[in-house]
Amino acid sequence: MTDQYKYLLPDDRIPRAWYNIQADLPVPLPPGLNPATGKPLAPDDLAAIFPMELIRQEVSTEREIEIPEPVREIYKLWRPSPLHRAVRLERALDTPARIFYKYEGVSPAGSHKPNTAVAQAFYNREAGIKKLSTETGAGQWGCSLAFAGSLFGLEVKVYMVKVSYAQKPYRRALMETYGATCIPSPSTETAAGRAVLAEHPDSPGSLGIAISEAVEVAAQNADTNYALGSVLNHVGLHQSVIGLEAIEQMEMAGFWPDVVIACAGGGSNFAGIAFPFLGKKLREGTDVRVVAVEPAGCPTLTRGTYAYDFGDIAHLTPLMKMHTLGSSFVPPGFHAGGLRYHGMGPLVSHAKELGLIEARAVYQNPCFEAGLMFARAEGIVPAPESTHAVRGAIDEALAAKAEGKPRTILFNLSGHGHFDMQAYMDYAAGKLQDLDYDEAALAESLAKLPEVAPA
Amino acid sequence: MTDQYKYLLPDDRIPRAWYNIQADLPVPLPPGLNPATGKPLAPDDLAAIFPMELIRQEVSTEREIEIPEPVREIYKLWRPSPLHRAVRLERALDTPARIFYKYEGVSPAGSHKPNTAVAQAFYNREAGIKKLSTETGAGQWGCSLAFAGSLFGLEVKVYMVKVSYAQKPYRRALMETYGATCIPSPSTETAAGRAVLAEHPDSPGSLGIAISEAVEVAAQNADTNYALGSVLNHVGLHQSVIGLEAIEQMEMAGFWPDVVIACAGGGSNFAGIAFPFLGKKLREGTDVRVVAVEPAGCPTLTRGTYAYDFGDIAHLTPLMKMHTLGSSFVPPGFHAGGLRYHGMGPLVSHAKELGLIEARAVYQNPCFEAGLMFARAEGIVPAPESTHAVRGAIDEALAAKAEGKPRTILFNLSGHGHFDMQAYMDYAAGKLQDLDYDEAALAESLAKLPEVAPA
Repeated sequence: MTDQYKYLLPDDRIPRAWYNIQADLPVPLPPGLNPATGKPLAPDDLAAIFPMELIRQEVSTEREIEIPEPVREIYKLWRPSPLHRAVRLERALDTPARIFYKYEGVSPAGSHKPNTAVAQAFYNREAGIKKLSTETGAGQWGCSLAFAGSLFGLEVKVYMVKVSYAQKPYRRALMETYGATCIPSPSTETAAGRAVLAEHPDSPGSLGIAISEAVEVAAQNADTNYALGSVLNHVGLHQSVIGLEAIEQMEMAGFWPDVVIACAGGGSNFAGIAFPFLGKKLREGTDVRVVAVEPAGCPTLTRGTYAYDFGDIAHLTPLMKMHTLGSSFVPPGFHAGGLRYHGMGPLVSHAKELGLIEARAVYQNPCFEAGLMFARAEGIVPAPESTHAVRGAIDEALAAKAEGKPRTILFNLSGHGHFDMQAYMDYAAGKLQDLDYDEAALAESLAKLPEVAPA
Repeated sequence: MTDQYKYLLPDDRIPRAWYNIQADLPVPLPPGLNPATGKPLAPDDLAAIFPMELIRQEVSTEREIEIPEPVREIYKLWRPSPLHRAVRLERALDTPARIFYKYEGVSPAGSHKPNTAVAQAFYNREAGIKKLSTETGAGQWGCSLAFAGSLFGLEVKVYMVKVSYAQKPYRRALMETYGATCIPSPSTETAAGRAVLAEHPDSPGSLGIAISEAVEVAAQNADTNYALGSVLNHVGLHQSVIGLEAIEQMEMAGFWPDVVIACAGGGSNFAGIAFPFLGKKLREGTDVRVVAVEPAGCPTLTRGTYAYDFGDIAHLTPLMKMHTLGSSFVPPGFHAGGLRYHGMGPLVSHAKELGLIEARAVYQNPCFEAGLMFARAEGIVPAPESTHAVRGAIDEALAAKAEGKPRTILFNLSGHGHFDMQAYMDYAAGKLQDLDYDEAALAESLAKLPEVAPA
């Protein structure tokens, strides 16, 4: 039994480079566009808000990009993250499937987000930047950037969606403990914020508004850059450390996954675990299915349009070709705040269009049911976002049981739920609704997609 | 730099047995006493509430006690826990000291408590027990036993101090997520609880009351046992896995600690990291100082009397010789709820009397100052209890700086503060007071110590 539960990596198997799937794609990724000119983005278009090394990574087609030593040193605080076999969950399900999970909740911020936050803070500091601005919804990303900023001596300003700012004081306290400043958005500090407040003084805020505020501050201040926690190519690149470790760990375990599963909001945790496996499939033909699980209330991959769209409400970002529900789409109020984004990372969307990945949408009650079952069997309480991956894995295990055939399942448990106990309380009290999006509002939002001339 | 930050253990260096300091003590531990007879406890005196294997461990003088394989398998969920060198903290302090810390916050419950909760749940299940009862203050222990109970299929009932039950709904939610039942104490379920309520219908509860309720339930039901999260010898024994791993990890790091530091409430996390090092000192003469850091508002080791006393307010427990503030002592309301106990584990107290360990009492503001500094330098937010150890380590590092001499410091970071952000918010807002205990109340409490005839 000794090697059945946990696989740690010896030093010589710890990844020293990130994996970039752009090297292995059968069809290149459609480029981002400058919204003013409609032409493919030039590096200078992004230079006001990102350091050049991250811009280079955004468009790179190199397969391996070295992880700088200072980043690897900080990764050691929680990496390599453990890979466990969920034997007690397998028994509880009475399934012939083998269920493995990679656990990212061991990071100081409690999720996978620091994998990219640390890298982004490092490159910005190297570029002489003193301050970072960003947005956060539920607060996972804001806490992670605050953590990374504190280690690299960068000031971090976080625009936090106002309703979350009021509802989640402990996430805010964590950011402030790391020395960051947390501003409820919309704020009076930016033109974007003031414009919203002029029209809606009581606006509860949204991720799209907060992004507009953070981008504006970065664009207007030479010592300030912007940092994004998902969606972009370089973010998924940094998250590839998850999948690269998992490949080594699955080899140590002596099993290869038939299916790799992760939840998908902006797509970075999904890309992080899935793309390295997908790369081996593309290069070596190693078979594997890859499944993204998203919330039924914000079904970007399963119901969105694949089109060029903006990343924010004020249309300050470049245009990216992605699955989108439209930048004005507002999802219903389910608990997995990290999955409430109107778009999907361009690389994940592209992989979906190429038929390389599958996607499923699930309601929140079955997700919390899965999360509770996982907690009681395996001992770790998943974050609401991560319960989507647990649901996906359990459904695969039940399918294997129905077929009476073994199958090896790997999923990414992207974070712990210690900051999200209110959601579990609401679930236990039967207060959670299986929320659908508004069909009419979606149609309206999609009707406003920007027109882009064909390349 | 590669090996400077984190030391993980290869499989062949993972402890397979706990370490029992009773084998190496120069003077045997004074026995617990049956309060009715005043005679040393017989195993049968405890058989109503503990399984025989734990009673055996309580009095054992064997040096090594094997960790059962099912316990080791579950330990793998988070063990071996990482040992890090706090190089960024060293730089921030500009100290010649080397600071190492062992991090127990990676457990599913976020602290060291599961090390013993899992063992206790295992032995109880092996003994055919179906239910466990326990008490909890802030909730760390209750969550850990709930976690362990869920993995071994035991029903867990937690009597939670009423004021904490109301103030800390998320800890309660975590217990319930693991399937445990959480009852505000004093309750009407027990004679002990009803007696308190008859006299004080609005009683906010206390740890002493909650212990009485949990012990009563266990004593009166054949299928129910009691579990305690600190103080007792077998609890510290299970925690020795911390120090045993740390010995291996310090050897890998190539440094031996000049001083080992931990916070001390009931003493189990302190004993866990310190006793294995102390054992090497006693057996092999390997020099090491050992320092317990306790709250100034509940200064058991530094201001308590070394005497036989009860562990609970209703005097249902055996008499134990320990440093005590008296079982009716009520500490002021500082944030480190896990350190608010009137007594100290008998083995820790005995070690103090033998001059084997040092103790210091500190106020909470300097502790949170240290916790904040640690969070910003090292990235991990310590639990309020653990900030006492951080304070102790920083003071040692500053002493080394004043002397201009290196010294190697090891401390136990016993848990993360993700459930304790209110305390950090209060600290940041300048709302925390450096609370002293009430001198007159302490004198009164000590005057009520039970009279025990000399052995």
